[in-house]
Amino acid sequence: MQKKGDTIRFAQPPGIVSYAAVGGKKEAEGPLADAFDLLVTDSRCGEKTWEKAESDFARYGLETALKKARLQPDALDAVFAGDLQCQCTASAYTMRGFDVPYLGLYGACSTMAEGLALASCLVAGGMMRHAAAMSSSHFCAAERQFRTPLDYGGKRTPTAQWTVTGAGCAIVSPDGGPPYVRGVTFGRVRDYEITDINNMGAAMAPAACETILRYFEDTSEAPEAFDAIYTGDLGLVGSKLLLQLLEQAGLPLQNHKDCGLIVYDRETQNVQAGGSGAGCSAAVLCCHVLPALRAGQLKRVLFLSTGALMSQTTFLQGESIPGIAHLVELSATLPEQNEKAARQTDAAAQAAGSPKRQKHAAGRPGAAAEPGPRPQKQPGKEGAAQ
Amino acid sequence: MQKKGDTIRFAQPPGIVSYAAVGGKKEAEGPLADAFDLLVTDSRCGEKTWEKAESDFARYGLETALKKARLQPDALDAVFAGDLQCQCTASAYTMRGFDVPYLGLYGACSTMAEGLALASCLVAGGMMRHAAAMSSSHFCAAERQFRTPLDYGGKRTPTAQWTVTGAGCAIVSPDGGPPYVRGVTFGRVRDYEITDINNMGAAMAPAACETILRYFEDTSEAPEAFDAIYTGDLGLVGSKLLLQLLEQAGLPLQNHKDCGLIVYDRETQNVQAGGSGAGCSAAVLCCHVLPALRAGQLKRVLFLSTGALMSQTTFLQGESIPGIAHLVELSATLPEQNEKAARQTDAAAQAAGSPKRQKHAAGRPGAAAEPGPRPQKQPGKEGAAQ
Repeated sequence: MQKKGDTIRFAQPPGIVSYAAVGGKKEAEGPLADAFDLLVTDSRCGEKTWEKAESDFARYGLETALKKARLQPDALDAVFAGDLQCQCTASAYTMRGFDVPYLGLYGACSTMAEGLALASCLVAGGMMRHAAAMSSSHFCAAERQFRTPLDYGGKRTPTAQWTVTGAGCAIVSPDGGPPYVRGVTFGRVRDYEITDINNMGAAMAPAACETILRYFEDTSEAPEAFDAIYTGDLGLVGSKLLLQLLEQAGLPLQNHKDCGLIVYDRETQNVQAGGSGAGCSAAVLCCHVLPALRAGQLKRVLFLSTGALMSQTTFLQGESIPGIAHLVELSATLPEQNEKAARQTDAAAQAAGSPKRQKHAAGRPGAAAEPGPRPQKQPGKEGAAQ
Repeated sequence: MQKKGDTIRFAQPPGIVSYAAVGGKKEAEGPLADAFDLLVTDSRCGEKTWEKAESDFARYGLETALKKARLQPDALDAVFAGDLQCQCTASAYTMRGFDVPYLGLYGACSTMAEGLALASCLVAGGMMRHAAAMSSSHFCAAERQFRTPLDYGGKRTPTAQWTVTGAGCAIVSPDGGPPYVRGVTFGRVRDYEITDINNMGAAMAPAACETILRYFEDTSEAPEAFDAIYTGDLGLVGSKLLLQLLEQAGLPLQNHKDCGLIVYDRETQNVQAGGSGAGCSAAVLCCHVLPALRAGQLKRVLFLSTGALMSQTTFLQGESIPGIAHLVELSATLPEQNEKAARQTDAAAQAAGSPKRQKHAAGRPGAAAEPGPRPQKQPGKEGAAQ
């Protein structure tokens, strides 16, 4: 276990035993439809309210993840969960149905990374054997809570994002993996004084930028060592801003992807700037990122969930919207396996008479021999936080 | 580090470096007035809204705890915090002012124990050196959010509790203490189908009962080994119910205390069934329990915060109110010190020619030689959870 700056890296990285993603109607029409474990096209799940339906989505996610791991609920030491509903009721009411310790989180749309990071810390610390991280959201519940009731028929602005109706759940264990959780970086609150409730991407981009910069500063890694750097739900506007901010800070990213731009087809699905919601990064992580890591199609990724921390009350009171982003470092192999693979490659190269492969920091396949550009400036350090 | 059931006990218990409690007008008129670090009798703290004022209370709490520990904010590896406002905005907006990683929690009034437990786990696991746990609440903000706006002038029922206007903050570190965090038990969601938004005590009592039973089952400790077992804010109604439930389960408690009954004088302060709110257990912990442990007036205590997990939306939708309770085991000495003290007592007794002191499990001063009654039945195991 190594702690540097805001980043914790595990000597014995816990693995992810199983994961599941559940989506609704819009998600069933999107590009990831085939990847979801379960699609429920009735947004109400047969319930009387959207809020109850969201609890159902969360429950399906947790049940499916348990089933895929061949675990009974009592095998779980804890569920770390949260959602967007006031007082996180989607998660709390879901947890009435599971006789398992519950750690309620509120990180808005950053909850999945927060939960996965905390679960990984407790598992890596030997305090838990199986811990689940879960998050959910529901378009209809979120719209009426944060903006206007659907019946009002408000016109959506081009910067608005479409809250994912769905949930994601991942179970962490020392015995699990691949994929493995190699490290985590906990984010700081950043407020760039965005006040537009229909422009969450802009409110969250500075926080994502800062957490990414801190991770690379803390670890001396280079972005090129990763197949992709995923953010949660910056959408089109927030993603552009993130890349601008990172470029200004001397860390241009070539491999950035945003879950909010993966989950829907912006051209055909009328979702304005893309997807959002606590269920967005949770579902995309569990149906897109983790399966690709398990299959070895991705070797190493950084996964960030990004949250906008306002409420309807603070919005109506004219407050600006603070953002936060937590980061989880994921890999398809353990550090020793990486080194072993690197040694084998070296030996094979030597046996074949080719010049010895240049050593690099952690023997990572695909890592640049020369470290990438280091962050020059950290937004938020001078005057960003209020 | 030892994990049994839902309880984690630390081989090297982290210490609490410092703590601070801040209260408002009603708290300044209560029996703990002299114990608070700071009392602000203007409930608005000079702000335009109660919500902003709550952020100020939280900020004063964190600032004072840092000051007492002679730490700068950048010494903190994280702040674990949450509150009752929708989307936990009191904590998130407070954290705009501190350049420190922020882990947002939602456990309603159980947040202080949840945060202190998680902070202790991360510190005990060597992942953090200084982590703060913080929670706040505000009577005016809570009333209009969960019940009716104050201007409405609604009549308060005898089972209603008075939300504490205040905050508590404790900083955990491997170097800190006394007091020490010896162990934690994470709670499970329990729903006994209480639907009265003015009777939180009844909604939370079953969860508190279950967590207490689990702790004693997991650890084979006896209640007599503790100077007191504190619950967060069950108030008069919930406390009576808790004692009834525990008696039915075969674990009658003689040393139960409730923070909601300590913080106000029910006879003179017109608070109906007592105090409540996320700031209630946080403030009482930090101005009453922790100082007594540090001074050695208390040797060992269990501290539970209890949360009612409803929202105004679920209430208006006719949903029942689930409860949760997290537990933290606190002591004035480290385990080795206890044993050393016990050995010295034994040696002294032998030297004085008296019969050798009977050994008991962990050599705890004041522990019963015979283990106390064991829990017979666990509420919630059969049919409690929905």
